[in-house]
Formats: sequence, structure tokens, C-alpha cells
Amino acid sequence: MEATEKDILRGGQFLVKETSCEDIFTPEDFSEEQQMMKESVIEFNDREIIPNKARFEAKDYALTEECMRKAGEMGFLSVAVPEEYGGMGMGFVSTMLVCDYISSGTGSFSTAFGAHTGIGTMPITLYGTEEQKQKYVPKLASGEWFGAYCLTEPGAGSDANSGKTTAKLSDDGKHYIINGQKMWISNAGFCNLFIVFARIEDDKYITGFIVENNPENGITLGEEEHKLGIRASSTRQVFFNDTKVPVENMLSERGNGFKIAMNALNVGRIKLAAACLDSQRRITTTGVQYATERKQFKTPIAEFGAIKSKLAEMATNAYAGESACYRAAKNIEDRIAIRMAQGNSHQEAELKGVEEYAIECSILKVAVSEDVQSCADEGIQIFGGMGFSEETPMEAAWRDARIARIYEGTNEINRMLSVGMLVKKAMKGHVDLLGPAMAVKDELMGIPSFDMPDYSVLFSEEKEMIAKLKKVFLMVAGAAVQKYGPDLEKHQQLMMAASNILIEIYMAESTILRTEKNVKRFGEDKQKEQIAMAKLYLFNAVELVKKNGLEGIVSFADGDEQKAMLMGLKRFTKYANYPNVVELRNTIAEKVKAENKYCF
Amino acid sequence: MEATEKDILRGGQFLVKETSCEDIFTPEDFSEEQQMMKESVIEFNDREIIPNKARFEAKDYALTEECMRKAGEMGFLSVAVPEEYGGMGMGFVSTMLVCDYISSGTGSFSTAFGAHTGIGTMPITLYGTEEQKQKYVPKLASGEWFGAYCLTEPGAGSDANSGKTTAKLSDDGKHYIINGQKMWISNAGFCNLFIVFARIEDDKYITGFIVENNPENGITLGEEEHKLGIRASSTRQVFFNDTKVPVENMLSERGNGFKIAMNALNVGRIKLAAACLDSQRRITTTGVQYATERKQFKTPIAEFGAIKSKLAEMATNAYAGESACYRAAKNIEDRIAIRMAQGNSHQEAELKGVEEYAIECSILKVAVSEDVQSCADEGIQIFGGMGFSEETPMEAAWRDARIARIYEGTNEINRMLSVGMLVKKAMKGHVDLLGPAMAVKDELMGIPSFDMPDYSVLFSEEKEMIAKLKKVFLMVAGAAVQKYGPDLEKHQQLMMAASNILIEIYMAESTILRTEKNVKRFGEDKQKEQIAMAKLYLFNAVELVKKNGLEGIVSFADGDEQKAMLMGLKRFTKYANYPNVVELRNTIAEKVKAENKYCF
Ligand SMILES: Cc1cc2nc3c(=O)[nH]c(=O)nc-3n(C[C@H](O)[C@H](O)[C@H](O)COP(=O)(O)OP(=O)(O)OC[C@H]3O[C@@H](n4cnc5c(N)ncnc54)[C@H](O)[C@@H]3O)c2cc1C
Ligand SMILES: Cc1cc2nc3c(=O)[nH]c(=O)nc-3n(C[C@H](O)[C@H](O)[C@H](O)COP(=O)(O)OP(=O)(O)OC[C@H]3O[C@@H](n4cnc5c(N)ncnc54)[C@H](O)[C@@H]3O)c2cc1C
Repeated sequence: MEATEKDILRGGQFLVKETSCEDIFTPEDFSEEQQMMKESVIEFNDREIIPNKARFEAKDYALTEECMRKAGEMGFLSVAVPEEYGGMGMGFVSTMLVCDYISSGTGSFSTAFGAHTGIGTMPITLYGTEEQKQKYVPKLASGEWFGAYCLTEPGAGSDANSGKTTAKLSDDGKHYIINGQKMWISNAGFCNLFIVFARIEDDKYITGFIVENNPENGITLGEEEHKLGIRASSTRQVFFNDTKVPVENMLSERGNGFKIAMNALNVGRIKLAAACLDSQRRITTTGVQYATERKQFKTPIAEFGAIKSKLAEMATNAYAGESACYRAAKNIEDRIAIRMAQGNSHQEAELKGVEEYAIECSILKVAVSEDVQSCADEGIQIFGGMGFSEETPMEAAWRDARIARIYEGTNEINRMLSVGMLVKKAMKGHVDLLGPAMAVKDELMGIPSFDMPDYSVLFSEEKEMIAKLKKVFLMVAGAAVQKYGPDLEKHQQLMMAASNILIEIYMAESTILRTEKNVKRFGEDKQKEQIAMAKLYLFNAVELVKKNGLEGIVSFADGDEQKAMLMGLKRFTKYANYPNVVELRNTIAEKVKAENKYCF
Repeated sequence: MEATEKDILRGGQFLVKETSCEDIFTPEDFSEEQQMMKESVIEFNDREIIPNKARFEAKDYALTEECMRKAGEMGFLSVAVPEEYGGMGMGFVSTMLVCDYISSGTGSFSTAFGAHTGIGTMPITLYGTEEQKQKYVPKLASGEWFGAYCLTEPGAGSDANSGKTTAKLSDDGKHYIINGQKMWISNAGFCNLFIVFARIEDDKYITGFIVENNPENGITLGEEEHKLGIRASSTRQVFFNDTKVPVENMLSERGNGFKIAMNALNVGRIKLAAACLDSQRRITTTGVQYATERKQFKTPIAEFGAIKSKLAEMATNAYAGESACYRAAKNIEDRIAIRMAQGNSHQEAELKGVEEYAIECSILKVAVSEDVQSCADEGIQIFGGMGFSEETPMEAAWRDARIARIYEGTNEINRMLSVGMLVKKAMKGHVDLLGPAMAVKDELMGIPSFDMPDYSVLFSEEKEMIAKLKKVFLMVAGAAVQKYGPDLEKHQQLMMAASNILIEIYMAESTILRTEKNVKRFGEDKQKEQIAMAKLYLFNAVELVKKNGLEGIVSFADGDEQKAMLMGLKRFTKYANYPNVVELRNTIAEKVKAENKYCF
């Protein structure tokens, strides 16, 4: 069944439209081909990555390169690359799936993989000329060559367009001469090609270039950075000293670099989210296996409520992350297909398809990168003292997880982007927030409706809650926009609070919809624990919405306005029937214990 | 002014009694002697520890030992040791102060210091015979000898009494022969003396011994453990193989070891809390200094709301930690003095004095160890990519902080202890919880009182809130005890929720009382930011109480009981006038920025 324009939500629209569970894609919808791909990636990981954990931790950069080469042989580097350039041309969901399952073993390899296939290759497939693509992409897709992405500079991190690297046209007009210093460049130590961003003259925006790595062309590398985590990921400074780049190696047009950089990051973000999923699964599995074996007080620690609670929360967040990541991935895939059907080139379609869901990409990046951190944190805690030892896998997982909140745009930047982009979409009329925001305002003035759903129907209460959480966002963000207009961006603490609400809504809704869809196909019996996870995630989400909503309201509204909004917050975050949270957690934990692994 | 029995709260009583701000000790009450001690410790740290950070990170165990030796020369190891055994015999507050300020530079040294002066020396000063004290304590106090504490075994961590190490009386009755394996022993690599816990025959409880470190006496060490953090803290396994210990080296009586171990841990816990304070101060200082220098978007990042919010929260938690740690420390000091005045020996008085506040010790251990983790976490985030580099101090601070949630009893164990001990105290009639809990129940059935404090008086609202938060605890814990009786202990998730509430109450109340006391002496003008911190801490605390209260209520109460309690929760967590949280944070951050350091 082909998705049509009408069926699928536009980016950000999840906030104002109800999605029916049939309209979302879930990991249970993987095609046979995708299942096979998944298994093959897991098998690769189990064979090549996991057993070598100690070597990665010992900064064996060569091993990372070797594994990348092997991943190339398996075809994993080419999943997203169109067939005409030597790739498999698989869809976005498949791309995500590979990112997901290949990333569990160590953040070192995961980062190398992400930097190469994402920001190292994509700018060429997305913006390259036919010649550029013919020349470079097949090599990158096969793993004959590796790519790196040089955007960041010592003075230009979050403010990516402020770089000082220059590109000057040579006198004969045949080359650009690049000078500058790039920093934190993943894969720098073994790559054959850099995507480099540099400024031409006094251009407002930077320009992208494809630069082959040739030490005789003024390219030198700094020493390997010594880092908290992802120890075997090569990260170096790259210095360009009168590096000559043929004019035909400019990417897209002059001044288009910032756009390229940002679009590459959109893809990078959602893929990074996927890349934080399988570590959560593996950490949960390692955690439960330890907890069922380790005894204290003559009892396997997995029997203690304190530990069960951790296992349940870990599994739930992983499940929520999967639900939201694959939902968004399929939206992107469908959007690309629609655009192509409308006559867009593959390139254009892919670009616009991802850009459309930039809000979701930011949301996912933040949510899943934070979940993997807390998952690893609980993983350490389950292991007690052993969690602090380099002999067990938890501490490396914890250190590796830390980077995900920093790169591909810090979580602060992504939080602000998520709300900022939404507000812009609303202003442009791409998403109608104003109408629904006004409706909420009216609702608040009126008498509360006493219409109640039939609470005996599965998820009726939860869906009502989701609808109400959306009202909280509309109420808070709506009033903030009204008060500050475009200046809202300067009120970052409000932006952050609004973003926290937005994130929880997307994650919780995705989790519920996935579960609802699966209940319909597989039966409620088979989804008991998933139902518990959906309910638990929502319960936690509601608490976060309450807190962030309150923080926002008391900080920009006074007097009667504040009172009305507090009343609204209360009304919109109140369950008719509260779930028994302890029972939910126990249900989930018992399942994880019984299967002795993450099993959803 | 000497404290008398009547003036000071018993352990756990903070929950049911109102404390007036004059009755708490604050860091602003340090005596001249204490100030001098503080400065001398800071100076030592600045000279010996901070500049050597890189060496500590490179696992230079010898440096740790050398610094310990120097700390001995400065007298820092002898602060808590009575004068008759070569110590300074300073009070508990001074002991805390040294732990606090000596711990900022690196967790490696901090751990070595804590293990030696706390669990390595204290068991002898607290439980030793006169001969044992004469023989060992002066050497430990001067740093001629170092101590270590051998409780944990591979199979006995949280369940400390379950160790398999045995002590068998020799045929001639002159020695105990110790056999067993101890694990995770801090300072093992360079200590001269071990406090060892072992079981005699089939005793229910283990017994403590003083064991001199003599390789020819069957004592061997494992390799240094490779750890996530505190890299230069020596941590090894210790094997005892027919180790002969003279009978006169038994600590206290046979079977008294578990009690010794637990009491040593009580002191260890509150000192560990103190040991997590100065790193928070230093991280905050390093963070603000970076944030005012680092520019992105042509703006020092310290100007961004997202960063200001972090700085404010970091400072606030550090300030709250100080407030609560020194409040409890002085209670302990006073309690010891009272007991001595009543005729207890110094030893007995000290033991009972600390034991009295075991609840507070657990509370502080959990709260402050979690705060230092989030402080370091935000520290990394402020540094962006540089936070991930070993070249900047944040990543080591983050790794080092992680241990504090594991040792001296995991935070799970301490959470459960805090509530468990309180309930036991109530049962024993040492703290009257039942009366107040009944009063809350009655209040809930009655018509809400409309008596309002005069909100124009500083902290009137905040104190009302604290009183209400206490009611939440009494309501939730009271009902839980009523429902489950002594079985409550098995309902760990409830225990954890109750503990989270208890912790927030103690921390928030201490913060407000400290500030109130200082406002009275120094004037409101001079305490603007402290007032903001007290209010911000409370606001966050209320949110946590709401969440944990709700979780508890919906998980053990149904129907009308649930409704009534939810109503109570709402009533008891509602401000009459909400503070503007963003404004509070900005006030705090602006001060930290202006002083370019933690300055409270
Ligand atoms: C291991 C590693 C690998 C990397 N790989 C690559 C790579 O392959 N290619 C590449 O180009 N880059 C790479 N990076 C760089 C990475 O993308 C940047 O570190 C990141 O974008 C943050 O930039 P920064 O480090 O300059 O931090 P800054 O931008 O200086 O940020 C510091 C702090 O200020 C905050 N901040 C900044 N601006 C604002 C604002 N306007 N409002 C609110 N808060 C703000 C940030 O959120 C952060 O908390 C890598 C970094 C690391 C650590
Ligand atoms: C670096 C380092 C230094 C140390 N230094 C010393 C030292 O000098 N001397 C010494 O004797 N020990 C030392 N220890 C040991 C430390 O005290 C123990 O690691 C700690 O008490 C936890 O015990 P464990 O590691 O066996 O974890 P476990 O007890 O196995 O705990 C594993 C998990 O189960 C949980 N758990 C256990 N029991 C329960 C329960 N009843 N209910 C709910 N949850 C439970 C724990 O909270 C934890 O999450 C050190 C440890 C480390 C890592």
C-alpha cells in the first residue's frame, strides 16, 4: 500500500492531528528483507564488534578502520546509497535499521559508521553533481574509501556558519585554495575524503567542498584526541594549508554550505537516535542477566523492587525510542516516495523528505540520546561495584553514551530548534497551530466538558491524555508566542520547557500507537508488557509535562492569566484513572527477567 | 553557647518538628579556627592536588600515597583523632570541613583520604581498646601509617554480613587465623593496616580485627583494578591465607563486627557527602569561567538562558548540599557534647552521636552524591565538545563522581535505610510519627484551613510549603505503614518514593533555614541570590515530592482513599504564590557570572 500525500502527517503536525495507529510504521512491520538485513547486522556485530570490546577501549584505531572495511564488504555502508552509484538503494527505514543494530557494540565503531555513511557520504549523494557522485560515491559505498565531515572549528561549534576557514579562487580559476583549521573531525585518521566547509570572500554563508585527503596537498592532522568515551573513534584536528581543490569539487552552489551542513545534520540526528537504540537493548539484556545471577541477601537482586524498577524503566525507554524512531523514519520514507511520484529527482525528494521532519529529527536526537545515558547509568548501578570496573561492559557504555548529547548539534541546540522550527512552520502556515491554540484557550474559558471516553476500551484513557498533553503545549507555547512573538527565541528557558513537553508528547504518542497497532494484530494477550510500557512511558511523560508546563507558566504569566493556565495545566494532566505504576513496572520487569533479555 | 538536650533535634525529628533558623549551624558560622583550617586545606589542594590532575588521571598511585603523606604532615589526617592519640581532637564540623575542601581536586585523593581517615582509622578510635588506640592511632593520625577497610567480598557487597572470610582461634589460643578474599579495597596498595571483618565459627555476625599488613603473614594483593574513575586511588583485592592475628587485635567483641561496620559507614556516609561538595563548587567555577569566555553567535555562551539555567542549578545544589551537610554535622557534634556532659566516654558519645543521625547521614549521602554527578554532567555540557576531552577537567570530574553513588552503601540501600530507620524509630517511640500522621489524616477529612501566613514576610510561603511537604510524607508513608506494617520493607518502590520525598524535605528545609539565618544577620540585600537559591531549590523539591507522592499513592491506594490522598497531595504541594523560576535562575546565574566563580 503506497502512502499518499493525504495519509501522512507533515513534520510537526503530530501535535495538532490525531494519528490512527494503522498509519504508523512499527518495528513489527519490518519486511522480510528488512528482517534479514537486521539479522545480518546483528550477526556482524556479534562476530566482529562485541568480542573486540577491549581492543576498542584500548584505542585500537586500526581495528575501527578494519571493521569499517568489513562492514563495507557486507554492504552495510551502501544501504542508503542509490543503486546507480553502487549502493543498495534501500529506503530510509532500512537505513535506520542498519544504524540501529550496528551501533550496539561500541560507540567507537558506531561513530565511525555514522560519520562515514551519514555526514561523510550523504552530502555528496544529496548535493553532488552527477560527476561527483559517479566519482566518489561508489568508493564510499563499498568501503574502498572513507569519508569525514569538516564543519567544526575551534571558534565555530554550535555556531557552525561562523567558521574562519577560507576558500579562495586561484588566479587561473581552476582551483579553490583552502586554508583553515578544523576540529573534532571523526574518521580523520583514516579517511580518504573530507567534506569541508569554508568561506569564499565575505560570503554570508559558507560553501561546501569535496576534498581528497592528500598529505602532499597541504593537509595535516593533529594528534588523536584523548576522549572520555568512543576511545577508538579517530578524532583529530585537520589543518588545511593552501590546499588546492578543483573548482568542480564545490558541493552545490557557492554559499550553499550552511544549508548542506544543516540538512546533513537533520539526517545525522535521526540516525544518531537510531544508533542509541541497540545499546539500550544490549545494556538492558546485560543488566537483567547480571541481576538474575547476582545474589545478595540470599536473593537474586533482580527480585528486589529497586532493581525491577530500573529494568522496567530501561526497557520502556528503549521501546519508546524504537517506536518513535521507526515511526518518523517511515514518514520520511513515504514523504520521499510521494515527492518522487510528484516528479522530484531522487536527490531533491530525499532532501525535502528529511527536511520536512527536521522537528522530529531534533526531538528524537534529544530523547534517545538522553535515554541511552540513563540506561547505561542504571546499568552501572545494577552491577554495583562491578559496574565501576573496566572489566564489565557498563562503564564503557556510559562513557560512550555521553557523546550523543554533544555532537550532531548539542541537545540544547536541538531542543531550541525543535520548538523554533515548529513556531516558524506555524508562522508560514505549514502547520496550523494558531487555530488549535485558540481552541484550547476557548476551552479553558468555558465549562469543562464532561464527555468521557469509554474507559474500558484499551488506551482510551491514554489517548485522551495525549490529546490533553497536546493542549498543554498549545496553551503554554501559544501564550508564549503571543507574549514574545519572534523574541521568544531569546527566552531560552521557556523554549527548553516547551521543547521538553513536545518531546514527551511525540515519544509517548508513538509508543501508544505502536502498541495499539500490535494489539490489534497480535491480540492483547501477547502485548501485556508492551501495554504496560506504553502506560508507564505516558505516566512519566505526564509528570514531565506537568513540571515543564508549570515552570513555563509561572515564569511568563501573572495574575488571572497564570491562574487560568494553572487550572488548564491541572485539567490537562489529570488522569481519570491513574495506573498503578509499581504494578506496571513489575509486569515489565517480570517479562524481561523471564526472557532474560530485552525482548520486545 | 552550649547546646542542650532540649535544643537540638533527635535524628529524623526534622520531619515532625519545626526548626528555627537560629538553631541550625551554617557554613557562615565557622569559627576563626575553622576558617583557618579551611583556608589551609584549600591552599594544600591548590598546591599539591589540582596541578597534578593529569598524573592522577594517569594512574600515578605513588602520587596519591605521597599526597597522603603530605596531608599527614599538614595534620589533616588527625583532625578527628582525639588529642591523647596524637590528633587535633577537633569537632565533627571541622572534620567535615576538611573532608569537604580536601576533596575537590580529584576523586582519587579524596577516596584515599576518606578511606584512611574514615573507615580505616575510625573503627579503632571508636571501638579500639586503650592499647589498640595507643599502638595504632598516633601512626594513622600522623600519616606514618595508612589504613584500609576490608569488608566487601566477591559475594558480599550490600549484604555486608554475609562474608565468607573466617577467623579461627589458634590451638594455643593466642591468635586468630584469618582466611578469605576481600575485594575493592581502597588504599590496599600502600596501607600498613587493614580493618578486616571475618566470621568466627558459625557466628551470626562477623567480627572486626586490626590486621597489620605483612606480606610474610599470608597477605597478598590482587592487581590494581582498572576503573571508570578515581583512577589513582589504589583498589585491590586482598587475600588472607592463614594470616595470624594476635587475639588482642580483635576489635570490640566477638560478633560485634557488623555493628562496627555499619557505624563506620554512618560516619563514612556523611563525610562522603561533604567530600562531594567542593567538587561542585569547583566545577561550577570552572563552568562559569569557560562560559564567560567561550563565544558562539558572537555572544559569550554564559549569556544564553540554556547555560544560565545550568549555572544556577549547579550553584543551587551545591549551596543546598552545604546547608544540609553542616546542619547535620553540627547536630552530631552537639549530640556528642551532650552525651559527654552526661558522662559518656568520648568513644561512646561519638558512636551514639553519629548513630543518632544515621537517617540524615543516608539522606545526605544520596542527595549530595547525585548532585555532584549532575553538576559534572552539566559541566561537560557547558564545555560542549571540549567537555568530552581529557584535556579539560569536566570529564574526570564526571567519572570520579560516579563512584559516590556506589560505595559507602549504594544509593538504593541508603534510600531504603533512610525510610526504614525512620519507621523503626517511630515504632520504638523515638520519633513520634504516628501522632502527626494522624493529624494529617484528620486535616484531610476536615475543611481546609484558610489561615494564611503573611506572605510579605520573607520565606513565609516557603516555610508553609515545607510544613506541607512534611505532611505529604506523613500522609504517604503513614498510610503505607498502616497498610503493610513491617512488610513495607518489601515494597521497595514505595520505600524509594518515600525516601525521595524525605530527602527533598531535609535538603530544602536546610537551605531555607540557612538563608533565613543569614538574612537576619547580614541583611536581605546581601542575600538576594541565596534567597533565590533557597526558593529555586524548594520549587524543584516540590516537583519531586509531587511526582514521588503521586507514584506512591496510585500504587497502593484505591478508590476513595486514593481520591482523598490525591486531594491531599494537591493541597500540600500548591503554592499560594508561585515563584518565577526563570527569574530566580537568572538572579543566581548573574551573580555567579559577575563573580566568575561559585561565590556563596
Ligand atoms: C567526539 C566528537 C566527534 C565529533 N565529530 C565531528 C565531526 O566529525 N565533524 C564535525 O564537523 N564536528 C564534529 N564534532 C564537533 C561537534 O559537532 C561540536 O562539538 C558540537 O557541535 C558543539 O560545538 P562546540 O563543541 O563548539 O560547543 P559550543 O558550541 O561552544 O557549545 C558550548 C555550550 O554552549 C551551548 N550553546 C552554544 N550556542 C548556544 C546557543 N545559541 N544557545 C544556547 N546554548 C548554546 C551548547 O549547547 C553547549 O552547551 C565532534 C565533537 C566531538 C566531541
Ligand atoms: C572503587 C571502589 C572502592 C571501594 N572501596 C571499598 C573499601 O575500601 N572497602 C570495602 O570494604 N569496600 C569497598 N568497596 C565496595 C563497595 O562498598 C561495594 O561495591 C558496595 O557496597 C556495593 O556492593 P556490590 O558491589 O557487591 O554490589 P551489590 O551489593 O551486588 O549490588 C548490586 C545492585 O543491587 C542492589 N541491591 C543489593 N542489595 C539490594 C537490596 N537488598 N535491595 C535492593 N537493591 C539491592 C544495589 O543497590 C546495586 O544496585 C569499594 C567499591 C568500589 C567500586
